[in-house]
Amino acid sequence: MPKLSLHPDRLLPADPTTRAIARELYAEIAGLPIVSPHGHTDPEWFATDAAWTNATELLLAPDHYLFRMLYSQGIDLDALAVPRKGGVIPATDPREAWRLFAANWKLFRGTPSSMWLPHVFGEVFGIDVALDESTADFYYDTIGEALASPAFRPRALFERFNIELLATTEGAGDDLKHHKAIQASGWQGKVVTTYRPDSVIDPEHDSFARDIVRFADLSGENVESWTGYLAAHRKRRADFRAMGATATDHGFVTARTANLSTVECEALFAKVMGGKAGADEAELFRAQMLTEMARMSVEDGMTMQIHPGSTRNHNARLFASHGRDKGADIPRATEYVEALRPMLDLFGNEPDLKVILFTLDETTYARELAPLAGHYPCLKLGPAWWFHDSPEGMRRFREMTTETAGFYNTVGFNDDTRAFLSIPARHDVARRIDCGFLARLVAEHRMEDWEAAELAHELTVGLVRKAYGLEAPAREVEPA
Amino acid sequence: MPKLSLHPDRLLPADPTTRAIARELYAEIAGLPIVSPHGHTDPEWFATDAAWTNATELLLAPDHYLFRMLYSQGIDLDALAVPRKGGVIPATDPREAWRLFAANWKLFRGTPSSMWLPHVFGEVFGIDVALDESTADFYYDTIGEALASPAFRPRALFERFNIELLATTEGAGDDLKHHKAIQASGWQGKVVTTYRPDSVIDPEHDSFARDIVRFADLSGENVESWTGYLAAHRKRRADFRAMGATATDHGFVTARTANLSTVECEALFAKVMGGKAGADEAELFRAQMLTEMARMSVEDGMTMQIHPGSTRNHNARLFASHGRDKGADIPRATEYVEALRPMLDLFGNEPDLKVILFTLDETTYARELAPLAGHYPCLKLGPAWWFHDSPEGMRRFREMTTETAGFYNTVGFNDDTRAFLSIPARHDVARRIDCGFLARLVAEHRMEDWEAAELAHELTVGLVRKAYGLEAPAREVEPA
Amino acid sequence: MPKLSLHPDRLLPADPTTRAIARELYAEIAGLPIVSPHGHTDPEWFATDAAWTNATELLLAPDHYLFRMLYSQGIDLDALAVPRKGGVIPATDPREAWRLFAANWKLFRGTPSSMWLPHVFGEVFGIDVALDESTADFYYDTIGEALASPAFRPRALFERFNIELLATTEGAGDDLKHHKAIQASGWQGKVVTTYRPDSVIDPEHDSFARDIVRFADLSGENVESWTGYLAAHRKRRADFRAMGATATDHGFVTARTANLSTVECEALFAKVMGGKAGADEAELFRAQMLTEMARMSVEDGMTMQIHPGSTRNHNARLFASHGRDKGADIPRATEYVEALRPMLDLFGNEPDLKVILFTLDETTYARELAPLAGHYPCLKLGPAWWFHDSPEGMRRFREMTTETAGFYNTVGFNDDTRAFLSIPARHDVARRIDCGFLARLVAEHRMEDWEAAELAHELTVGLVRKAYGLEAPAREVEPA
Repeated sequence: MPKLSLHPDRLLPADPTTRAIARELYAEIAGLPIVSPHGHTDPEWFATDAAWTNATELLLAPDHYLFRMLYSQGIDLDALAVPRKGGVIPATDPREAWRLFAANWKLFRGTPSSMWLPHVFGEVFGIDVALDESTADFYYDTIGEALASPAFRPRALFERFNIELLATTEGAGDDLKHHKAIQASGWQGKVVTTYRPDSVIDPEHDSFARDIVRFADLSGENVESWTGYLAAHRKRRADFRAMGATATDHGFVTARTANLSTVECEALFAKVMGGKAGADEAELFRAQMLTEMARMSVEDGMTMQIHPGSTRNHNARLFASHGRDKGADIPRATEYVEALRPMLDLFGNEPDLKVILFTLDETTYARELAPLAGHYPCLKLGPAWWFHDSPEGMRRFREMTTETAGFYNTVGFNDDTRAFLSIPARHDVARRIDCGFLARLVAEHRMEDWEAAELAHELTVGLVRKAYGLEAPAREVEPA
Repeated sequence: MPKLSLHPDRLLPADPTTRAIARELYAEIAGLPIVSPHGHTDPEWFATDAAWTNATELLLAPDHYLFRMLYSQGIDLDALAVPRKGGVIPATDPREAWRLFAANWKLFRGTPSSMWLPHVFGEVFGIDVALDESTADFYYDTIGEALASPAFRPRALFERFNIELLATTEGAGDDLKHHKAIQASGWQGKVVTTYRPDSVIDPEHDSFARDIVRFADLSGENVESWTGYLAAHRKRRADFRAMGATATDHGFVTARTANLSTVECEALFAKVMGGKAGADEAELFRAQMLTEMARMSVEDGMTMQIHPGSTRNHNARLFASHGRDKGADIPRATEYVEALRPMLDLFGNEPDLKVILFTLDETTYARELAPLAGHYPCLKLGPAWWFHDSPEGMRRFREMTTETAGFYNTVGFNDDTRAFLSIPARHDVARRIDCGFLARLVAEHRMEDWEAAELAHELTVGLVRKAYGLEAPAREVEPA
Repeated sequence: MPKLSLHPDRLLPADPTTRAIARELYAEIAGLPIVSPHGHTDPEWFATDAAWTNATELLLAPDHYLFRMLYSQGIDLDALAVPRKGGVIPATDPREAWRLFAANWKLFRGTPSSMWLPHVFGEVFGIDVALDESTADFYYDTIGEALASPAFRPRALFERFNIELLATTEGAGDDLKHHKAIQASGWQGKVVTTYRPDSVIDPEHDSFARDIVRFADLSGENVESWTGYLAAHRKRRADFRAMGATATDHGFVTARTANLSTVECEALFAKVMGGKAGADEAELFRAQMLTEMARMSVEDGMTMQIHPGSTRNHNARLFASHGRDKGADIPRATEYVEALRPMLDLFGNEPDLKVILFTLDETTYARELAPLAGHYPCLKLGPAWWFHDSPEGMRRFREMTTETAGFYNTVGFNDDTRAFLSIPARHDVARRIDCGFLARLVAEHRMEDWEAAELAHELTVGLVRKAYGLEAPAREVEPA
């Protein structure tokens, strides 16, 4: 039976000189706590601390990296126990789904899943044989037994993972009850929320009508007027801050911003609420609202994250049967220089505003994003995102942004995941790749070793705390 | 006299650890047969098995990689014996043309021609001195003498090259007589055709009017009606399949597809045939026909290849004097996500349809193509194409597609060439680059050595056979 | 106190085999003279040979690479002594500005400034301790004392730097008095000008109205008529050639060219001069004028440089307070294939015309620029520019252009700088990166060592002299 391999030097550059430097850098930061300021885990896990059930439900069915690849090779989502639209779980034996996945594990060779999952299997569950058809049942049973034990409850794993902070993401129509329950429980784990108001801003969002009602209820504002609608956002931002939020997040298809007069805003808003906004007006409203969100961030200090460029639900048939987030979101070319100009004209020079830009279009790294972040005080670069959250993708991010934006206009790593068990694996990949990149700079005598060590620490914990307004825990002493 | 160098480790990574792994991988697959499912060799060569004449006519005058570079440095195409419009051969002494090429051989340093041609010179002709002014005549004579001998006839070289299958490309107005002659000859070499109907689909193609007539004649259908026109395609696809074709190929300037109603199709088709289609309507017709071709592929099982993004005949003066394919085709930015949507809405989830996407716009690798192929069952990624069919280009292809699409959504290598003698060289370059890429993954502990070995075999023969619906020859045993 | 590090192997690849090859290549060309055919130093320096004052005024306040990064981290430009609009110098103690820079020097880790400045500090000023807060005063004093000495006057440094030729850039409304003074002085240093008529071509340029008047005065032509306007350009081009110019330079936001009839040109010109040209007409006029400039280059032999793609003065507030060139120019996506077509239709096949293309959009390297330059006789590729004039940027340039355009369609290095003291540092970085790239090709057996040595020489001095029509100095013997 082939062994599960988690080589201590994995992901470090092959050249022996560079690898030795990288290994030293990595040794210094491998044990630092995990700061996870952007992700999609379910706060209910930490509120109830209930046990997860089995490998399929926890690791396979919710992981779009896994089921999209399997689907691309002709494997039916039902056979993988992926929920259908409305959360309906297909009547698939989860063990059979796991076997199917195991039998096709080779499809993931060369993908980041082939780094993340063995880390979960080996480090979290202590498995030491490789996954394949012959070991599928052993995996399924081992994982299932572990999950039934107290040590594998969400809070226990949170502590074992040495997580300093974990941010979840909730919509503007969320009552934050799970976060309230976490706070009320007295548990010390720091789980905070993030304000993601897409579904009450984007008139084309499929939950817009429903979520606007909840938004009104929860804020107590009259969201029928432009002033009341803005006031509702301010209220809810405060609600979210009370649950630890230090950031907002915005994921529209473009990065467009606008700077309309109040009269224009009122007219546009009336159209939107009257259901009469066409595609151009919907886009203009989203653009104006990005500017409004920046204005509120200037007021309340929340860090603003912009995640544009995803063509959501590209596969119409799959969207009809299975709904959102089923691996059918496809990136598109994204423009930032003109798109952000209206917002930057107003707030670009604000020294205390923090706007973190993400992209799915790597061509903008060196051409647009690094030049923008290397100039405007308010702009910072988010890490390589989604399809690019991978060894090669992270390497390209550093190679294409550092020379113009430097390291200090970046914000550390985001795991951006709902796969809680893979969080240590994902942070570990990022740490290894960053150390490898820094090691190359040292090996090429472009940087001193002590500078690289300082930067490794910054990229792991320092910059993320600063960018998201997080305090360093008292117990940790920053290097001099 | 400088020696011709064909170092056994050429193109393998310099790092000793990685090179050693790459060398082992390469050793295992270097001797595998050549499967060439997409190219532009002349079937007449294999039908008549006539001898080629000289180095200039065979290796220089038809090779646009060579004469475009020489032209860019101010060398006249006439002096290189490149045919003028209508195939008129200039009255240039072919030996003089060869000398001119030899004297300028240094221009190709760092280009893929500097890998391909020495392989041809050394491995095919047994030459062991480097090409330059002083050896030009020796080359010309050696090659000329060889070509006159039976061992250098097309069929003999085909066998010597260990070619398992070679696909040529013919238009919809081609009578396939050479392929018929090959079949009738009893020769065992497997030379098949490919259905490329561009000139009867694109109203802006310079041969459209002429080829539509041939298309009608050969199909026996009334191509004046939309129904008859589609029936003619079905007939001709069957004709091509009878000559071994398993694939179609489509090379329009964009990847746009459409999904019009039958009534709309009929109206548009009438305009096209009446010569009244403007540029937008011509584009819409090509778009609709890509969808029709996909529909027919669902019916008849032929693999569909899409090669968009070339701005053909950019140099107006050269097009007037020398016609098509004279090195003046320039890539352009190409969009896939919206362009392919109408076709994917209809057939994207068909498990048995195979649509292979190519690009000249590398920015789409990670942003559009890998995400599309990593989701839709029908989509596969063609190899790095044309300007990117080169060591760095192939490396970028793997680095930018693998993490999202994996290896198994790719289809092996295409040589895409009419330079028959360079086919082994081109496949060899691809094998070396793939082994180098795999070796890096192994050296960085991102993959096991046995996995890399399996993949090297897949990338060389396994995936191409699968993608193009080719059977593995009985004699070869796939590794367990 | 940490030492200033200028490792002899800096920027060479880490792999020992490759580094050894790179080191040998570099040793052969490190001492070659500097040919600087494109830059922005002030000719007054060489005309008057006056001493510079202090580190802040010379090295910090004019360097947009430095102050843009500091600004992006919230540091006020006033505190850095950066001049305000109209050249007003803020009342900042230059020593305090220098201390602020020194205290933030870590921000430049990983940027090209971290390679250039230590070279200036170490090689030009002989400083051997690293820059930080504790050494800021030592730096400031050491540099100030040196600058007061004769050995650090502009002409003395020019000679010490072994500069064979230095081109400055002047507008069409410049009287070239400094160049005349240099010529009249009898000093042997070769400082030439470059014709940059942007401000009399671009109706949207903020100096258009003013500069057109000077242009008329200096040319003595009636620039109110289209014919007179063109004649004025011809006159001024001749004036510039008399001051050594061999090149023109054009920096509009797009690369668009046009080919209007004379009647159309006259009508468009009348609108432009009447202040009635809208944005589209201004763009069309710039496009037509690029074609006119190419036409004049065919006539007078001047090399034409095209630098498109910069969104100038993106930060409106900063432009209002500080004016142009304050680090707020942001690249944008740039298209060349259709943009250049009208000009190429006319002059693309001219064997003696030289048009050098630059880009801020790296996606065009492999997709558009290398295919264009690898075909059209008139086109050459300028080196990696501005944000991409950096180790990684230069590496990407070679990796993405060489396979299609070769080395011989490139033109050597441009330092493009007004930071005179950094010129040796910048050329040194380019030489090291080129040698590293060539060394990799040798190490991978893609090129012979003697070929790489020949190319290293070409990339350093040969190609630049040829592209800009410069004669090699008699004393230098080219390698056989």
